[in-house]
Amino acid sequence: MWPLPEDIDTPALLVDFDTLVANVDSMASRMLGKGVALRPHAKTHKSPQIAHIQLDRGACGLTVASLGEAEVFADAGCEDVFIAYPLYASPRKAPRLRALAGRVRLSVGLDSPEAARALVAADAAALVSVLIEVDSGQHRSGVLPGAVGELAERCGEVGLKVGGVFTHGGHSYRDTSAPAGAARDETEALRQAVESLAGCEITAGRVSAGSTPTAIASATGPVTEERPGTYVFNDRQQVALGSASRDAVAVAVAATVVSTAVPGQVVVDAGSKALANDRPGWLTGHGVVPELGDAPLVALSECHGLVQLGDKAPPPVGSLVRVVPNHVCTVVNLFDRYEVVSAGEVVDRWPVSARGHLS
Amino acid sequence: MWPLPEDIDTPALLVDFDTLVANVDSMASRMLGKGVALRPHAKTHKSPQIAHIQLDRGACGLTVASLGEAEVFADAGCEDVFIAYPLYASPRKAPRLRALAGRVRLSVGLDSPEAARALVAADAAALVSVLIEVDSGQHRSGVLPGAVGELAERCGEVGLKVGGVFTHGGHSYRDTSAPAGAARDETEALRQAVESLAGCEITAGRVSAGSTPTAIASATGPVTEERPGTYVFNDRQQVALGSASRDAVAVAVAATVVSTAVPGQVVVDAGSKALANDRPGWLTGHGVVPELGDAPLVALSECHGLVQLGDKAPPPVGSLVRVVPNHVCTVVNLFDRYEVVSAGEVVDRWPVSARGHLS
Repeated sequence: MWPLPEDIDTPALLVDFDTLVANVDSMASRMLGKGVALRPHAKTHKSPQIAHIQLDRGACGLTVASLGEAEVFADAGCEDVFIAYPLYASPRKAPRLRALAGRVRLSVGLDSPEAARALVAADAAALVSVLIEVDSGQHRSGVLPGAVGELAERCGEVGLKVGGVFTHGGHSYRDTSAPAGAARDETEALRQAVESLAGCEITAGRVSAGSTPTAIASATGPVTEERPGTYVFNDRQQVALGSASRDAVAVAVAATVVSTAVPGQVVVDAGSKALANDRPGWLTGHGVVPELGDAPLVALSECHGLVQLGDKAPPPVGSLVRVVPNHVCTVVNLFDRYEVVSAGEVVDRWPVSARGHLS
Repeated sequence: MWPLPEDIDTPALLVDFDTLVANVDSMASRMLGKGVALRPHAKTHKSPQIAHIQLDRGACGLTVASLGEAEVFADAGCEDVFIAYPLYASPRKAPRLRALAGRVRLSVGLDSPEAARALVAADAAALVSVLIEVDSGQHRSGVLPGAVGELAERCGEVGLKVGGVFTHGGHSYRDTSAPAGAARDETEALRQAVESLAGCEITAGRVSAGSTPTAIASATGPVTEERPGTYVFNDRQQVALGSASRDAVAVAVAATVVSTAVPGQVVVDAGSKALANDRPGWLTGHGVVPELGDAPLVALSECHGLVQLGDKAPPPVGSLVRVVPNHVCTVVNLFDRYEVVSAGEVVDRWPVSARGHLS
């Protein structure tokens, strides 16, 4: 792994610049090879600086998860933003949505007639491009592929034009062998969705798929754009899923050993308020510590991380270590800024600008 | 439960003012009855406004988990702050610690000779009051009660005077029957720790115990102060532990139903980035929705919460609901501000000022 800076206050969110840029380039080149547009999900980094690196190096636009995130990236000069979420344009959100659509090329997701009617009631129907969400197997949101045409017709009845379909094969995270199947499911569901639209004489201009594991595992198909997010940093989960090598993990949390009082373990000053509590059933622990032979964090309190040492001798209290987290998206969301590292030195600080913009 | 405001952008962090004040008064009165000082843990709310309500209504000072949190409350005029954490005064933290000790009455925790030496090296030994952390059964940090005297002597050798002992009976959260035993463990461990100090001719000025379940379950003993935190809001976990009634839950996350496409469930716009992922083994789900008959959230993505409806008819997309979270401390930590509610109206907004001050 990249060298750890020696002089740093902890806990801190580190991003290695060179690894980050290599990840950006690698995905851009992969998508170019497949002939699909790359629209990275910016919920992972929430950083205008990183968004501009992606846009300068091959991305066609950004994906976000909320209107608030879209506003932050619009403020930072990003010109094409897709809210890949079943957005409900409530009376509170309506004026914000219209203002945003006046300054960026905006697309939004939906999966219900209610959301379609709300967009019309918000006077936003002519201002945004609408993509229908398709359930490709995660069973979270999205209509079944064969029902896309019917929903598009309901949208048409209230004056809303549908421009495409999107899906998120989130079941790629169910176990370490899931990505290949989820990638096939995405492709097949989108193929059926396009067919369903064609049955209503609607052409799907954009056919959008997305997740880091499926973007890597998928073959060509009807897809016109991919929306991976985590690839920009990677994490323990992506390594276990086979989507990235350990050397491609660009983010870690710097921490200090603060207690060695209980035998067989040490406590570091990064707990669930720095590392989040995300742990899929197929991963043990809440992260690993490379400086302690990849010892796992076996329990988190809010400000304490318990590293299990086993028979290893504990390092002295005060030692600087880092934690490779399970799921980087929720970790980044806990910090106000990145310490940008290059060759073991902190060379810059970037704000996590879209953190907290949940609504 | 208190009435939900009708006009609110979501997701949003709601705090009911009247329930909050009732909780503050109830704990203050309980501690007064036991004859112990109340030093609430401010990591729960991270709010100067709420700290001042506590200080105005019976608290002797505040507890915090990090130097950064202490700085925020000092900036807000709080005069007596205890960092109940095994603080390591690294060269990066040393000047901040000295500056802070110059403007508030500051106490800090430690459980190692290294931390003692770091405090001396930081020129902070004469500026702060030191409490030794005792492991009363959680086995996270802290020395065993009988070893407190020895550590106090090691502190003395480097010129650091010990003023007391503290513990956190965090094993009160292990299962719903744990609080009573953990409260007894805290009291007994602190009794032994005081004895261990007395053996070295050191008088423990402060004997500090703390957690909401144990503060409620404990009888009188050697304890001079209690440090409950969560009681100010309560949550699903505290209700299950028997530390609070459901009517005493002061915080909830307002959310909107955004998808009903998958049968048997609805999706709300509060996921793990609004609700955190804390779930003890003895609680099912990630929160409940009172507006849907306490239906549980059975899965969280970052911006999606899946509410299991079973046979109930789904509410329309666009419906406003709220989620009673499992563990309120990590939920508050995800928001920038509270929407302060009274009688079903938003009457104020308070910043979560100490959020992000992890180091």
